[in-house]
Amino acid sequence: MAKSFLQNGGLAAGRSTTRSITSRLTSVYSDVQNIRIDYDLPLPSVLRNPFKVVDGPRSTAAGHPEEIEKLFPNLFGQPSVMLVPCDSDSVLPDKKLKIGVVLSGGQAPGGHNVISGIFDYLQQRAKGSTLYGFRGGPAGIMKCKYVELNSDYIYPYRNQGGFDMICSGRDKIETPEQFKQAEDTVQKLDLDGLLVIGGDDSNTNACLLAEHFRNKNIKTLVMGCPKTIDGDLKCKEVPTSFGFDTACKIYSEMIGNVMVDARSSGKYYHFVRLMGRAASHITLECALQTHPNITIIGEEVAVKKQTLKDVTDYIVDIICKRAEANYNYGVILIPEGLIDFIPEAQKLIAELNEILANETVDEDGLWKKKLTDQSLKLFEFLPRSIQEQLMLERDPHGNVQVAKIETEKMLIQMVDAELEKRKKEGSYKREFKGQSHFFGYEGRCGLPTNFDAMYCYALGYGAGALLHSGKTGLISSVGNLSAPVEEWTVGGTALTSMMDVERRRGKFKPVIKKAMVELEGPPYKKFASMRDEWALKNRYTCPGPIQFSGPGSNAVNHTLRLELGVV
Amino acid sequence: MAKSFLQNGGLAAGRSTTRSITSRLTSVYSDVQNIRIDYDLPLPSVLRNPFKVVDGPRSTAAGHPEEIEKLFPNLFGQPSVMLVPCDSDSVLPDKKLKIGVVLSGGQAPGGHNVISGIFDYLQQRAKGSTLYGFRGGPAGIMKCKYVELNSDYIYPYRNQGGFDMICSGRDKIETPEQFKQAEDTVQKLDLDGLLVIGGDDSNTNACLLAEHFRNKNIKTLVMGCPKTIDGDLKCKEVPTSFGFDTACKIYSEMIGNVMVDARSSGKYYHFVRLMGRAASHITLECALQTHPNITIIGEEVAVKKQTLKDVTDYIVDIICKRAEANYNYGVILIPEGLIDFIPEAQKLIAELNEILANETVDEDGLWKKKLTDQSLKLFEFLPRSIQEQLMLERDPHGNVQVAKIETEKMLIQMVDAELEKRKKEGSYKREFKGQSHFFGYEGRCGLPTNFDAMYCYALGYGAGALLHSGKTGLISSVGNLSAPVEEWTVGGTALTSMMDVERRRGKFKPVIKKAMVELEGPPYKKFASMRDEWALKNRYTCPGPIQFSGPGSNAVNHTLRLELGVV
Repeated sequence: MAKSFLQNGGLAAGRSTTRSITSRLTSVYSDVQNIRIDYDLPLPSVLRNPFKVVDGPRSTAAGHPEEIEKLFPNLFGQPSVMLVPCDSDSVLPDKKLKIGVVLSGGQAPGGHNVISGIFDYLQQRAKGSTLYGFRGGPAGIMKCKYVELNSDYIYPYRNQGGFDMICSGRDKIETPEQFKQAEDTVQKLDLDGLLVIGGDDSNTNACLLAEHFRNKNIKTLVMGCPKTIDGDLKCKEVPTSFGFDTACKIYSEMIGNVMVDARSSGKYYHFVRLMGRAASHITLECALQTHPNITIIGEEVAVKKQTLKDVTDYIVDIICKRAEANYNYGVILIPEGLIDFIPEAQKLIAELNEILANETVDEDGLWKKKLTDQSLKLFEFLPRSIQEQLMLERDPHGNVQVAKIETEKMLIQMVDAELEKRKKEGSYKREFKGQSHFFGYEGRCGLPTNFDAMYCYALGYGAGALLHSGKTGLISSVGNLSAPVEEWTVGGTALTSMMDVERRRGKFKPVIKKAMVELEGPPYKKFASMRDEWALKNRYTCPGPIQFSGPGSNAVNHTLRLELGVV
Repeated sequence: MAKSFLQNGGLAAGRSTTRSITSRLTSVYSDVQNIRIDYDLPLPSVLRNPFKVVDGPRSTAAGHPEEIEKLFPNLFGQPSVMLVPCDSDSVLPDKKLKIGVVLSGGQAPGGHNVISGIFDYLQQRAKGSTLYGFRGGPAGIMKCKYVELNSDYIYPYRNQGGFDMICSGRDKIETPEQFKQAEDTVQKLDLDGLLVIGGDDSNTNACLLAEHFRNKNIKTLVMGCPKTIDGDLKCKEVPTSFGFDTACKIYSEMIGNVMVDARSSGKYYHFVRLMGRAASHITLECALQTHPNITIIGEEVAVKKQTLKDVTDYIVDIICKRAEANYNYGVILIPEGLIDFIPEAQKLIAELNEILANETVDEDGLWKKKLTDQSLKLFEFLPRSIQEQLMLERDPHGNVQVAKIETEKMLIQMVDAELEKRKKEGSYKREFKGQSHFFGYEGRCGLPTNFDAMYCYALGYGAGALLHSGKTGLISSVGNLSAPVEEWTVGGTALTSMMDVERRRGKFKPVIKKAMVELEGPPYKKFASMRDEWALKNRYTCPGPIQFSGPGSNAVNHTLRLELGVV
């Protein structure tokens, strides 16, 4: 509007200012970054007033409790806890704490807010405390590489995307030597607590550390925090992992744009592969946000034991039906991990790994005789470029790199071939043009949505409270998310209660099971009830760019809302 | 903030409402779409008050005026015009107009606003007028496929992305038969005017139609409107083409996110190919917005007659220098049309087109002897996958499809090979991991920024005024863009004044020359003065998602600001 344009000084206002926040390396902050830095985060009321920590009932495990108990003799059975209001401010010890924090694994929007949350807790509730940030992920703990975080250091990262405040890494603390290194570090720094911000593996690791320290009578408490854009780290008490909301909205903005493009030009099928390999939550959420014509959900493919041919036929059938309705365009969402959900593809890859490790691949293709009939049939069905990818792109162990397979391009080629067949049969008469997209990295480091910013801040602030109250082996959990922030609950969930075991090399390993898309859950059911309509009618929704103020700016993703029973 | 969250009804507000705007097909509008529909657009004051149309001096042509005069005997030399305030409201005839509008070529954010602009003009200033929308681009004119646009029809498209209100197409009105068809249509509909919204080709076409109608004494006036995200249709009087601002900001959002990702994980070089084949304006603007480590500008490559090896070495040198500074990551921007700017690549492609049209390609590679030494050397330098693409991916005429070459992947492979070489020589010691991205379709149909929304509305409204005042052969031009909207100037520029001729098949053809990146222009010079610093220091800016309200939401792109002399 003219008014705000004028108020804004017209064009001269520029989009990116030259105000430089020097402590964030050498960045030049944009207007939006600057606005976000000073965005004032609300806290749940329980965190704004005196509280006490109340234990719940004794917990058990997600599976094989007897094995989990053996693995965590000190921690097993400990209750989850809740923060509840109380009269006095003196419930928690008046003591200066030394706390370490680490970011583990892939980036997720909001990580910086978890850190600013725990920092602000310490500043406000345990004055004189020290917060160390371990650099570069768990390796930073093992190598004792850290930085002391203060107000000036943290300021430029407030409400900003990325993990670059202290960076992250994918190392794991696994071997006895590595546990010893971690032990040395926490003792050297005299740490009262350690906050591990990570996914399922990292939180499992956090729990192992907590058990180890408890067992060795080391005072350092360990707390976890649920991070992953994939959305597959959640349970009843941990309604969602942070970053999922932002990433899905960034992808949905792009998908919505591509939909409008498809409808405007009327000649392309856009095949969009979305990050999230183990579970299809991102794909499902983006479908709920944008209403594409076709969406492939890995978990459904697995349950129905579909083959690649089944998936191709499903897509082709809809394309043909749309052609009859004179729609020669559309948008198709595909989860990054599709191949992992297709039993026959897994079998083929296993056989290829075996054969290629032991045989030379002759030009005449005699090596193919080593494949089972089913795998040979699938291999021959694949487009040539994918065959080559399977043969050539191998990791250092000689294994096929499934993640590198451009599934969206593979499907375009298979769909094209099938449509050509149907053209010859006379059941399809149009020209098919596929356009491939992969939306991944651009969603991991975006500026967190208001929801992720607030949720993470509460997770971090709450984690501070839990460490302050002497808890260990919990994951920070913020609940009642369908209510206003004011009314959100804050507590900690026993990590052992989220665990099961897997047998690896003859040994039981504790794991936090990934939360897969539930075919009986509300988000999938909502999607399943709509998809036939979306397939043939164009119910496209264009969410547009994430807004930080105004209507809708505080709304959260459909998955969480549906799971919380909010219509 | 808690307050707006509460006001908003908390989570229940949802992100996409079920309020369905039925006339936009079957879409379900998101909150942001709904807010944008009712966004009230300001008009330049000259359009809000009585105005008259004032002629400027006689015009000439951008080149070869004598040839342009021969091609446009009726229009050549006509002045550009300006709207200026006047006392009386009765300057323009009180008459009901019949106007047609058409969208031509690729989508650009803001097209719908041009249409709503001219619609509102007719509603407010020539009451009782009729606006027809030709469907599917120029083919809609030739086939007389149209829809009558009314308030209800237009409403859901206000401030929305895409061209789906009437859709677009790439057909051209070229042959005498096609001109006759257009003639029949405008006469059948008794059109007083036609507004052609398109790029350089479409505006040239608009001018040919204007000349044709004038020559045949047909009353239909023809007006052009500057559309293209590529930003290569502009001149002094037409400061920018619409859509460029939005597309660049969408790409810059993604680039900014990828930068934060690169810095957080510290292990990837992201190679980002950006749409915009003929000119590198988009790449340059995105560089100015985000400050990547490396940016390739096609026009510079062409002027310096760089080879692919030169470009590769330039990238590799910076990667090595960054490695010395312990930065093993970065972001690299590449224009989609890079190959077109490299003389040796053009030569190779021409030779391949020739050879492959006439020779069989033998497996032993004897055909390669037909290549000149220079081309053979380049061919052998290319990664195998690109060699295959050059050999196999051909259009229906047998020509190499340059647009399909994934330049970013090609460069990753060439950079990787060169770095391996330097590793052996000992001058590089790190691991190189390239990640490829192509940002294209997601930028063409986004919700227009405030600037594009306002600019397009003024362009359309102004076009209505020009047609009303009896002008033809002009392109709608809105100027003084560095001032508040209030003070923007509105007028029309003689299309012939933007033209030169090209010799094709022995004949002179009129063309509006594409505006390339000027190596002496302020945007490039600003970039050139900064790039060495950006290469080695990380001056990343993360513009974040486009905001429609608040600070910065009305700011425009750097290219336009620098060209207008706004610091």
